[in-house]
Amino acid sequence: MNSQYPSHLLDEAVGQFAKLPGIGRKTALRLVLHLLRQEKSDVDAFANAISAVRNDIKYCHICHNISDTDTCDICADEKRNRAQVCVVENVRDVMAIESTRQYNGLYHVLGGVISPMDGIGPDDLNIDSLEDKVASGKASEVILALSTTMEGDTTNFYIYKRIARYGVPITTIARGVAVGDELEYADEVTLGRSLVNRIPFDQTLRVNAY
Amino acid sequence: MNSQYPSHLLDEAVGQFAKLPGIGRKTALRLVLHLLRQEKSDVDAFANAISAVRNDIKYCHICHNISDTDTCDICADEKRNRAQVCVVENVRDVMAIESTRQYNGLYHVLGGVISPMDGIGPDDLNIDSLEDKVASGKASEVILALSTTMEGDTTNFYIYKRIARYGVPITTIARGVAVGDELEYADEVTLGRSLVNRIPFDQTLRVNAY
Repeated sequence: MNSQYPSHLLDEAVGQFAKLPGIGRKTALRLVLHLLRQEKSDVDAFANAISAVRNDIKYCHICHNISDTDTCDICADEKRNRAQVCVVENVRDVMAIESTRQYNGLYHVLGGVISPMDGIGPDDLNIDSLEDKVASGKASEVILALSTTMEGDTTNFYIYKRIARYGVPITTIARGVAVGDELEYADEVTLGRSLVNRIPFDQTLRVNAY
Repeated sequence: MNSQYPSHLLDEAVGQFAKLPGIGRKTALRLVLHLLRQEKSDVDAFANAISAVRNDIKYCHICHNISDTDTCDICADEKRNRAQVCVVENVRDVMAIESTRQYNGLYHVLGGVISPMDGIGPDDLNIDSLEDKVASGKASEVILALSTTMEGDTTNFYIYKRIARYGVPITTIARGVAVGDELEYADEVTLGRSLVNRIPFDQTLRVNAY
């Protein structure tokens, strides 16, 4: 299939783009042809940004989130509750939770979830440092906020087994019918969980979500 | 919105990806996070391929198609009919026509179509060199194979006006109901054109398309 391209430079660039998730060879070719129409300086800036983000990016030494500094802005913020630790998969989840403005603790970014299919085991994730954090006795609550997938549930359970013995309260975010969703369209597992884990009504009055 | 990212390197890389057509900031972030999980050498190879394709790619001096050499493989092929010139928009159209194995002439790649909305005028396209080719008297037929869009039709007409006076036969690819399509689902313009431009039935027997 590669020999269909009239240039090995084109072939190489298309091949590299096609390695990205969700991008096939047709889309890759479209993207490369787009770049060929841009100024050389703009394309170099694109290439440099890609190299720089991989080579020079830092991770916060406390929460492992992406950061420009050794300690990220969240971990450095004295106003936040340093005893609460919310365990998430990656920076996107940190951004999603931050955007709710409902959480004032710190994070712990695992860098993924346990996924034998993808060759990702516990040793590939930031779990040792989470255990250290809990073992040091500084955490008053660990909130597990991973995706409700098989991998997320497996990781939740693995972390639970590792840190439960330190006696720190471990919670997980509520699963239920999404705000704004109609009951009849909720899947039965979600609806079932939202019934089993129902909460006192007056508790909902305290949330100032909007 | 930029300040949502916890790192300016991340922000820059996401911003660069989001400039690509069809890629929004959410997808861009997903792609950058994917790259952060790859080996540094692989990401550098990706960045280098992008720089290289823009900086080092050559265009055939005869047909303007992307090439690794001054003369592309098609133009250098002595077995091809050098008097036939098929005018196409870009390398993707060359590849599409080549894959039919129904054409044995040369190409002329315009590098785009006239599109005032995008600021692309005739001077931005390889039209002067097409006129030179026709004026030199070496072409026996010019085949216009641009997209059936307003921009494609405009460009067809502009080229026609530029080269008609040289008396070379100018043809355009047939428009009609696609092979394998049912009549009732064809749009009326296409069906109408296929009726107006009907051809002798025995002519279809000569085509060994599959």
